[in-house]
Amino acid sequence: MTQMLKTHHCGTLSKANVGETVILNGWVQRRRDLGGVLFIDLRDRSGIVQIVFNPAFSGDALAVADRVRNEYVLAVRGKVVERDAETVNPNIPTGEIEVQITEIEIMNAAKNPPFFIEDGIEIDESLRLKYRYLDLRRPEMQRTLMLRSKAAKVFRDFLDENGFIDVETPILTKSTPEGARDYLVPSRVHPGEFFALPQSPQIFKQLLMVGGLERYYQIARCFRDEDLRADRQPEFTQVDIETSFLSQDQLLELMEQLIVRLFRETAGVEIPAPFQRISYADAIGKYGSDKPDLRFGLELKDVSDIVADSGVQVFASVIKKGGQVKALNAKGCATWSRKEIDDLGVFAARYGAKGLAWMTYKEGELKGPIVKFFSEQELEALKERLEAEEGDLLLFSADTKKVVADVLGNLRLKIGRQLGLIDDSQFKFAWVVDFPLLSYDEEEKRYVAEHHPFTRPKEEDLHYFDTDPGQIRAQAYDLVLNGYEVGGGSMRIYQREVQEKMFAALGFSKEDAQEKFGFLLEAFEYGTPPHGGIAFGFDRLVMLIAGRSNLRETIAFPKTASATDLLTDAPGAVDDKQLEQLSIRLALKPPTNK
Amino acid sequence: MTQMLKTHHCGTLSKANVGETVILNGWVQRRRDLGGVLFIDLRDRSGIVQIVFNPAFSGDALAVADRVRNEYVLAVRGKVVERDAETVNPNIPTGEIEVQITEIEIMNAAKNPPFFIEDGIEIDESLRLKYRYLDLRRPEMQRTLMLRSKAAKVFRDFLDENGFIDVETPILTKSTPEGARDYLVPSRVHPGEFFALPQSPQIFKQLLMVGGLERYYQIARCFRDEDLRADRQPEFTQVDIETSFLSQDQLLELMEQLIVRLFRETAGVEIPAPFQRISYADAIGKYGSDKPDLRFGLELKDVSDIVADSGVQVFASVIKKGGQVKALNAKGCATWSRKEIDDLGVFAARYGAKGLAWMTYKEGELKGPIVKFFSEQELEALKERLEAEEGDLLLFSADTKKVVADVLGNLRLKIGRQLGLIDDSQFKFAWVVDFPLLSYDEEEKRYVAEHHPFTRPKEEDLHYFDTDPGQIRAQAYDLVLNGYEVGGGSMRIYQREVQEKMFAALGFSKEDAQEKFGFLLEAFEYGTPPHGGIAFGFDRLVMLIAGRSNLRETIAFPKTASATDLLTDAPGAVDDKQLEQLSIRLALKPPTNK
Repeated sequence: MTQMLKTHHCGTLSKANVGETVILNGWVQRRRDLGGVLFIDLRDRSGIVQIVFNPAFSGDALAVADRVRNEYVLAVRGKVVERDAETVNPNIPTGEIEVQITEIEIMNAAKNPPFFIEDGIEIDESLRLKYRYLDLRRPEMQRTLMLRSKAAKVFRDFLDENGFIDVETPILTKSTPEGARDYLVPSRVHPGEFFALPQSPQIFKQLLMVGGLERYYQIARCFRDEDLRADRQPEFTQVDIETSFLSQDQLLELMEQLIVRLFRETAGVEIPAPFQRISYADAIGKYGSDKPDLRFGLELKDVSDIVADSGVQVFASVIKKGGQVKALNAKGCATWSRKEIDDLGVFAARYGAKGLAWMTYKEGELKGPIVKFFSEQELEALKERLEAEEGDLLLFSADTKKVVADVLGNLRLKIGRQLGLIDDSQFKFAWVVDFPLLSYDEEEKRYVAEHHPFTRPKEEDLHYFDTDPGQIRAQAYDLVLNGYEVGGGSMRIYQREVQEKMFAALGFSKEDAQEKFGFLLEAFEYGTPPHGGIAFGFDRLVMLIAGRSNLRETIAFPKTASATDLLTDAPGAVDDKQLEQLSIRLALKPPTNK
Repeated sequence: MTQMLKTHHCGTLSKANVGETVILNGWVQRRRDLGGVLFIDLRDRSGIVQIVFNPAFSGDALAVADRVRNEYVLAVRGKVVERDAETVNPNIPTGEIEVQITEIEIMNAAKNPPFFIEDGIEIDESLRLKYRYLDLRRPEMQRTLMLRSKAAKVFRDFLDENGFIDVETPILTKSTPEGARDYLVPSRVHPGEFFALPQSPQIFKQLLMVGGLERYYQIARCFRDEDLRADRQPEFTQVDIETSFLSQDQLLELMEQLIVRLFRETAGVEIPAPFQRISYADAIGKYGSDKPDLRFGLELKDVSDIVADSGVQVFASVIKKGGQVKALNAKGCATWSRKEIDDLGVFAARYGAKGLAWMTYKEGELKGPIVKFFSEQELEALKERLEAEEGDLLLFSADTKKVVADVLGNLRLKIGRQLGLIDDSQFKFAWVVDFPLLSYDEEEKRYVAEHHPFTRPKEEDLHYFDTDPGQIRAQAYDLVLNGYEVGGGSMRIYQREVQEKMFAALGFSKEDAQEKFGFLLEAFEYGTPPHGGIAFGFDRLVMLIAGRSNLRETIAFPKTASATDLLTDAPGAVDDKQLEQLSIRLALKPPTNK
């Protein structure tokens, strides 16, 4: 059991090592027996190297090697030699050499794994998650985790160099009055009371600014007990940042430098800065989304003015009710079949479309079932507005602004993808700015905060508090990349009178505000500096840099869409005694037939 | 509301800036009015600078400045000038200059804070915790948090340079079958089931080794729902490390380099390496503790052989029952009063002593109530063994080995402190090694794991599994510093036959083992490399480097000894609706009269 411990890593051996005697430790990737000579691909974190057992130099080691199977753990000693020209393998970095083994130790045996340890396997993801420790041996998983580690390092190095202090904030904290559902943690010491896991360190990072830390960051775990989608996890990681005494422009500029460095050092890509800045209104207007994919055009155009008086009944009535009619020019799609166009309608319906009107531009004129309801001038105006050319397909959505944006924004993405307009090698960043501060909640019959109640309004919009609060734009910003929101934040309110106006706009009485945000409001009374911050979605950034399409690929031990860990089988039942200590009991509902 | 944003930090201005116009942002530390000239000490994270408002150059700014009070947030513009020789303040780094203010903006007002924002305040800690955001403005708190951030950076830089991958492991995980109490998190999606917060990432880090990551680290949040002591927190941070293909010696050597670098870069102290290594048996034997404070001597001596046949009844009977008699020479304490010696007895009783025998060496002979029970030879032997000299006080403890160690170990610390033998500026490290693998649990009538069931036994002790499992030493190690355990770990079992022997020694059937550690045992079947690791107590290391005496001083938002956050008032009550969604209800016990 004395161990031969590695002197070299498998994947780093090259012609420079020829003649050296090395010890390697690793896993058997595969073995081949060629007429009594045994070739094993030995794998460790650094890569693969071919080791050779030959009666000519391996002695007893050959017989031992003959017993090994895939995923056995080996320690071997041998000499690095150059391969014959005809056996050089140009596909692997170590392909010019091999190691002639003189000594072997089987460190551990292995059962036959349930799937091959190699990239690009096509098996059910649940099997990979159950055997995550085997899945993690696959090079693409190791590369992704190493990239993630590297990305964290770049974030930290940059922030450290720029005077940010890494501060840990509590995981056992207090349930927040608004927002997504909290995970709760019963307290044993305080029966009947609960901690909550933080949805973000928002309150604590603002308190750190009140506390004079000036520049804070944390790569922070956050928790949301939401119904999960493919790109959500119950626990996720954000790079959380807050600063004092910086303007929004200064902060965004600093964050651009950070992102440029991140992509330079992890993806090897030079992102041009400054990033494009696009207002929320423009993003919705041109792309139907507040996280537009800017790698391609296909911009939406408002045609309400043109079609308002046309013979299309639904267009006119929608506009009369305050809605709008917008159109998208699907370049060159006039040749699509009726079936293909109908499929677009089905797709549009998912986003709330009651119908999808269309025209084609063929043989010099607009054609299609609705063309007859338009005058010559109207058709000319449409052609011009939509820059229609021979072979184009024009798609129209008429509804509330929100539905129109959703429908055409998603159609734009679908068609862009279908037409191959999206360059997957591109990273296209933009800041979306000037978000509305408030939105009117029809159910609650009041304004609610779009971001949170501490988001600072734009100076020049403050007067709207008294006249039209829905017009107020916030000093809030999202960083979008290729159609994903990868970061978001805001300048915060730090002045008492602005905060009071905000609460009034939200319909909170002084008592409401006190009850919901008491200790934070008290903190704000003791000399709060102007401050603001941002949080980057770390899992998602890593996913995009790694070119993966699922957050689970970037997390060592992720949970499924039903918030289960298939490896450890969490969550699980616990002892009654444990519950008793926590002063809780189960209150299960009778099963329903579903 | 247009803001003057800082061009310089207050504490960094010096004679080099004389003549420059600067903008500063900060908090009012104090103000003095000297005959119409206003002096304000302005504070930011970097330190303090004196700013001056004088009718001669301040114009309207003077009147505004006159309204400010302590902790107001100011933005000021002014010119850096050299102070007159007689007003130079050598106590602060900026004492040679001051800033003549021409423009001021009150960024925010402040209520009068409940305590002064300065170092060394003596107020109730609960007030500091309730107003933590003000407490954090005090320079010593900011220094400690910056030190903590720096320490994290050094750990990460070193580990990164040495090929360790930073991997995040889950916070929502599964309740562990043994060990301290878990914090539980009810699952909404899986009614009646619970996540647990991890006591450490132990299982996941071992799975990462099975997964071929080879070198892992994480600065990880851990959770224990234990009854709290002064130096415990319900959530704490450890630097968690695991490696494959390293021997214990290689790992400890690497960790020594890490610690040396940590102390060099945070404390500016050069720690000599290699660190002393002391066996568990020696640590208990000489210091009565497995985390000995090695900054001073006062070693314990076993005198069982000398006193076994003396006339002291209790000595003889303790030894006959398998106990021992040990003694401590309190150098030069023979002059202590009877009261002082009695107080030592009271102190000893806290650690289980039924009595504390003693002798003094005065005027050339041993004196005291028990001397008469010894022969001349026995007294001579004691003198020699304990190296007794004129003026010494000899203290004897007779009991089980454990009680004797506790009593004399704690007396040693108390007396060492009392005699001023401890140099607080020293950092004295040692590895305590060769811990016992198992200890016999009299209640359960079986052996239990001292560390955990995956700790690797020492090769040369394996044969004891069949004869005397209590004799087996583990490949486990603790790093101790000045009487604190600051790290601990072990090599892990990776071979099936050793694991089976371990389970057998613990009295587990195959089914028991499967039920308790099923998925981990399954993972071990698929080619587990030899591996081992360590975890450093990050909060405690920071505490010791910062020279603080309480873990709460090192944590931005700590909890009290009753696991409460006085700032946010967590834990707290939650809505019935929230509980219903989680399928639990409260089960409060009726209040008892206590």
